[in-house]
Amino acid sequence: MAGNTFGSLFRVTTFGESHGGGVGCVVDGCPPGLLLSEEDIQVELDRRRPGQSQITSSRKEEDKIKILSGVFEGRTTGTPIMLLAKNKDARPENYDHLKDVYRPSHADYTYEAKYGRRDWMGGGRSSARETLSRVASGAIAKKYLKEKLNIDILSYVESVGTVKAVVDDSKLTYKKIEGSIVRCPEEKTAGKMIKLIEKAKNAGDSVGGVIRGVIRNVPPGLGEPVFDKLSADLGKAMLSINAVKGFELGSGFYGTTLKGSRHNDLFYLDRDGKVRTVTNNSGGIQGGISNGEPIVFRVAFKPVSTISKEQTTLNVKKQKIILAASGRHDPCVLPRAVPVVEAMASLVVIDHYLRHKAQNL
Amino acid sequence: MAGNTFGSLFRVTTFGESHGGGVGCVVDGCPPGLLLSEEDIQVELDRRRPGQSQITSSRKEEDKIKILSGVFEGRTTGTPIMLLAKNKDARPENYDHLKDVYRPSHADYTYEAKYGRRDWMGGGRSSARETLSRVASGAIAKKYLKEKLNIDILSYVESVGTVKAVVDDSKLTYKKIEGSIVRCPEEKTAGKMIKLIEKAKNAGDSVGGVIRGVIRNVPPGLGEPVFDKLSADLGKAMLSINAVKGFELGSGFYGTTLKGSRHNDLFYLDRDGKVRTVTNNSGGIQGGISNGEPIVFRVAFKPVSTISKEQTTLNVKKQKIILAASGRHDPCVLPRAVPVVEAMASLVVIDHYLRHKAQNL
Amino acid sequence: MAGNTFGSLFRVTTFGESHGGGVGCVVDGCPPGLLLSEEDIQVELDRRRPGQSQITSSRKEEDKIKILSGVFEGRTTGTPIMLLAKNKDARPENYDHLKDVYRPSHADYTYEAKYGRRDWMGGGRSSARETLSRVASGAIAKKYLKEKLNIDILSYVESVGTVKAVVDDSKLTYKKIEGSIVRCPEEKTAGKMIKLIEKAKNAGDSVGGVIRGVIRNVPPGLGEPVFDKLSADLGKAMLSINAVKGFELGSGFYGTTLKGSRHNDLFYLDRDGKVRTVTNNSGGIQGGISNGEPIVFRVAFKPVSTISKEQTTLNVKKQKIILAASGRHDPCVLPRAVPVVEAMASLVVIDHYLRHKAQNL
Amino acid sequence: MAGNTFGSLFRVTTFGESHGGGVGCVVDGCPPGLLLSEEDIQVELDRRRPGQSQITSSRKEEDKIKILSGVFEGRTTGTPIMLLAKNKDARPENYDHLKDVYRPSHADYTYEAKYGRRDWMGGGRSSARETLSRVASGAIAKKYLKEKLNIDILSYVESVGTVKAVVDDSKLTYKKIEGSIVRCPEEKTAGKMIKLIEKAKNAGDSVGGVIRGVIRNVPPGLGEPVFDKLSADLGKAMLSINAVKGFELGSGFYGTTLKGSRHNDLFYLDRDGKVRTVTNNSGGIQGGISNGEPIVFRVAFKPVSTISKEQTTLNVKKQKIILAASGRHDPCVLPRAVPVVEAMASLVVIDHYLRHKAQNL
Repeated sequence: MAGNTFGSLFRVTTFGESHGGGVGCVVDGCPPGLLLSEEDIQVELDRRRPGQSQITSSRKEEDKIKILSGVFEGRTTGTPIMLLAKNKDARPENYDHLKDVYRPSHADYTYEAKYGRRDWMGGGRSSARETLSRVASGAIAKKYLKEKLNIDILSYVESVGTVKAVVDDSKLTYKKIEGSIVRCPEEKTAGKMIKLIEKAKNAGDSVGGVIRGVIRNVPPGLGEPVFDKLSADLGKAMLSINAVKGFELGSGFYGTTLKGSRHNDLFYLDRDGKVRTVTNNSGGIQGGISNGEPIVFRVAFKPVSTISKEQTTLNVKKQKIILAASGRHDPCVLPRAVPVVEAMASLVVIDHYLRHKAQNL
Repeated sequence: MAGNTFGSLFRVTTFGESHGGGVGCVVDGCPPGLLLSEEDIQVELDRRRPGQSQITSSRKEEDKIKILSGVFEGRTTGTPIMLLAKNKDARPENYDHLKDVYRPSHADYTYEAKYGRRDWMGGGRSSARETLSRVASGAIAKKYLKEKLNIDILSYVESVGTVKAVVDDSKLTYKKIEGSIVRCPEEKTAGKMIKLIEKAKNAGDSVGGVIRGVIRNVPPGLGEPVFDKLSADLGKAMLSINAVKGFELGSGFYGTTLKGSRHNDLFYLDRDGKVRTVTNNSGGIQGGISNGEPIVFRVAFKPVSTISKEQTTLNVKKQKIILAASGRHDPCVLPRAVPVVEAMASLVVIDHYLRHKAQNL
Repeated sequence: MAGNTFGSLFRVTTFGESHGGGVGCVVDGCPPGLLLSEEDIQVELDRRRPGQSQITSSRKEEDKIKILSGVFEGRTTGTPIMLLAKNKDARPENYDHLKDVYRPSHADYTYEAKYGRRDWMGGGRSSARETLSRVASGAIAKKYLKEKLNIDILSYVESVGTVKAVVDDSKLTYKKIEGSIVRCPEEKTAGKMIKLIEKAKNAGDSVGGVIRGVIRNVPPGLGEPVFDKLSADLGKAMLSINAVKGFELGSGFYGTTLKGSRHNDLFYLDRDGKVRTVTNNSGGIQGGISNGEPIVFRVAFKPVSTISKEQTTLNVKKQKIILAASGRHDPCVLPRAVPVVEAMASLVVIDHYLRHKAQNL
Repeated sequence: MAGNTFGSLFRVTTFGESHGGGVGCVVDGCPPGLLLSEEDIQVELDRRRPGQSQITSSRKEEDKIKILSGVFEGRTTGTPIMLLAKNKDARPENYDHLKDVYRPSHADYTYEAKYGRRDWMGGGRSSARETLSRVASGAIAKKYLKEKLNIDILSYVESVGTVKAVVDDSKLTYKKIEGSIVRCPEEKTAGKMIKLIEKAKNAGDSVGGVIRGVIRNVPPGLGEPVFDKLSADLGKAMLSINAVKGFELGSGFYGTTLKGSRHNDLFYLDRDGKVRTVTNNSGGIQGGISNGEPIVFRVAFKPVSTISKEQTTLNVKKQKIILAASGRHDPCVLPRAVPVVEAMASLVVIDHYLRHKAQNL
């Protein structure tokens, strides 16, 4: 109950701090027989890796993943899959200046309030390095969902600061998203976003934004009524990512301004005899259960807390001090957060698929 | 894993459909020794009850709660508390017209897709009547949190359609909220909201809106890092409520447009020697853990799906039909959803308090 | 985590005390479409009911079960099934003499040590009346297992005190077991057991014994390696029943005296091309997973703690007192425990079937 | 739900096979501030290690444990503790002869029946090497229980085959147990046990036995009524260990032959004003909750399945074959199982302590 496990049937337990031995996870409940190599996972991790472009942190982290168990003769065995990425050695003295500081909008103060102590090297457990385990385990889920159910899980940067892209989701492709270092499929807007990020970087500041997720080919019937609605679990998954401050499904907050007669998604029968809806304000989920339409959602990321500009804050002795981050931090977390969003979506969908299968298939 | 249980240490398992024997829940893990009467629970249920004002459904439901176990000599014993509200007898023929219809943006189609069958009387398990169990169990949590920790859990209707109130949260009181039938503490805006709701009602239509939650006096340290962040669990709790399409914490989606230097909440020491933040864009939660500031969040409710206006849809034979709801439905769910939001917030906070206590206190 | 929920996918949450509103449970996760009536459940409850023969307590309890939710048009819907048996009104004064007493080998003292208070009417939550919920929920599981997988779950009284039956499990039938009021299929020994129980009853004393369980037609593959071995979960299920002090599978404690060469179950191919074992010392489970042989186990029940003979004990003021139970208690719990053992076995097997199905089928 | 996680608040998730990258576990929920070094864990692992004496397998395994996360500046941080023991490289060809064989009373057949495939190198996940993770995580629990609550968790070999020791538990010490390579504190019997084991070894055969556990200083109040009785969770913990076929608490199976008047444990007040019982047939647990007396239990281990004697069995093509194990296996698992029993007991007690603390302290 200490919160490091996600999922009920496809269950991921993560560990690791920014520094120390390494980060990774144990994936329990994966169906047996899935072809799985380290390369399958590495390709997703490389999308999350720092230093991948001029708008991400220039930190050099290899993030090489190793599979230590659960795969035999190239296939999953049904027993726990252990994934480990070792940390590079770090010199503690590099972090001495953070030892006694509560960085604004970081977790330094709250960790100490909770545990009476904290690992002050690079954020310890609260470091975004923890998302590596999400992406690694999510890569397995994503592969299974694609191979067995043809489910596509995509996401892209829809806005950075006030720069917002207008994208036709029906024409969205992985290639278009990955074609841009900012992971926005709309080329012109992508250019503006990159400029905005570079400007913030040069100013020693940071910017936030919104990632939009699109999940296609989810069969109707996934999600549990009442508490474990597919929407509720997707929301929790996204809100558990560092820096996320909001989540909305389908019409979301905007939908609250519409009349019911405008908002309702009318059913019709398509040419293939499939039940469809004319609009998709429901975002692919009704009564907490997938209805077969694309699942669409939006995730709000605040601007990164680490900035080079000077800020006043407190140290652990409760004295007022001036802080200005040095080091190589991301001016905008969104491009690297895209694979994290997809990973979390994958974990939610596979878990609900297995839950649905257990009771109803 | 079928999704009808909420919480890990203060654990609520609900049951019941719109029609049939009744609705209710089993509350497991409540600390012993809490004074608890049916009246303590009834007072919250009366805030949720239909027919409480001219802007809610005029259905007459008594919703009388009975405690069947777990309370002895007026106090909780530490064993499961069973809460039951019997349903009134209904005549199945009243629902015959819904037997074969997929109502737009309802759960008729998705339940059938999931289970291969569905209870078509009044929505069955997907009926909003299910929220009665949330309010009943939440009332116990709320009482405990107030008595033991002085935690205040409030919420109010911030917007209906495009009518939005501007409220000073620091002056918010329970009395002000309950003084208005629409549960908006800002009197003038409340009047406009009521008019908007009545207009929608007369037009056979419905409206949505936003509820804002404010939790005060939460001690620093609640919430688990990584997956079970307090924000993630609050988000899931809210997104599990019928008709909810979005959740945001603190600065939320708006915060994505700010620079980090503007968004960061600077720490300072207040006169009482308490660590505080100058602003509260974090919404009282940092790194997933409460920091002692008020927890503030917003919940988006879509317009009610049941409307009297004619709509085209499909029946179970996949034929196109015209549907127009008769019956007494709510034109706007928000006034009655306020106690539901507070209940879910209470369940999240008590659960995280007990989890924190287990490991760290 | 307060221990009133059993199972992970077929999940039973129970509530209720000996006195008060009633006892019952919520069954979550039952597959939809199962034909289910109150009579299906009542028939099992009647096997557990007090007053069913001259060797059980003569208390008159009707134990009428009601299904309050989760069944529609005669079939399970996939949503929570709520089962309730109301308690008869009791006069508190009937229990006044137990209010301040710690009965030997009862849970009076430990409940008070745990919770700081206790429900002293008839044992409160620690009453064996709680097993009604097990039998009721188990009846659903049993029906499903029989109908969908042809699994037979049987148990019988193998010994009472030192009187032990020798039974050929391969010829065991439900009819033979139920043909005897002591639920021992071996007629002669059954007679001796009945005499022993009556003798204890007349002496104001009680006797214990062993129940043997036999589960047939379990497909190979049920059970999870490592912690949730089928044997471990069966053991937990049995050890959670009031008065149980021991559990063994297959050769059990006796098997510890054998050499490996004698104990190993050699594989062979039977005439139907099925992999079988020559002996069944494994009790149908190898490496925690069913191997297709009958699952056989034994459950030790201590003699009932409530006796009419005088005993010294303490009261809540820690003063020494003399206690002699009046009232109508069972001199031997075993005949009525047979349906409880079968119910718990059913709950374990269905849960593991659904778990196996989720991951591997 | 795939069974590789144990505990609810002090939660251990294990991974790893006999061969491959390594074995280990993630411990989540450990209270912060506990002094913890690799040496604290290694000392317990060395008691489990093969090759520690002439009566255990002569395999040379170092079993060096590494702490990869969750400990900072020598103390636990409250975040997940990752423990890893790398496997030595193995040559697959060494196991070629087992690739196609279902070894009698091993898990080869059942794993294949469950997953459709299996890791045939050294038993894969079903190897006893998996218990390393239990001992490692249990060492942390044991240390916490001793330091914070002065709880002592001991166990010893009570019988091997038909050789049984009579031990006065009140005089039992860790030193006496560890003074014997067979881990029986009664010197004379220990000698006989060793001879019996050597005889079996020389005959290419194996022997079983019973381990007795004694837990002292458990405060009254641990354990949850109904399903998660302390006895039920202890039983499950033990029955989840490889080769375990039985568990009994206190008087156990023998107690079923006694009358209630003889079996009941009468309460009295000791000189220190503490509530005690005259006898301890309850084994320290009443109504599923600890009563302050020593918790005593017995665990039955079958004779090891791997023997050098020839046996007939089937191969994966369902052909009859003759099998005779070569290699260095344990003729008796009990001496090395003692730390495993203690570890599992520690995990159960700490988990129930935290659960009790959350609700009641």
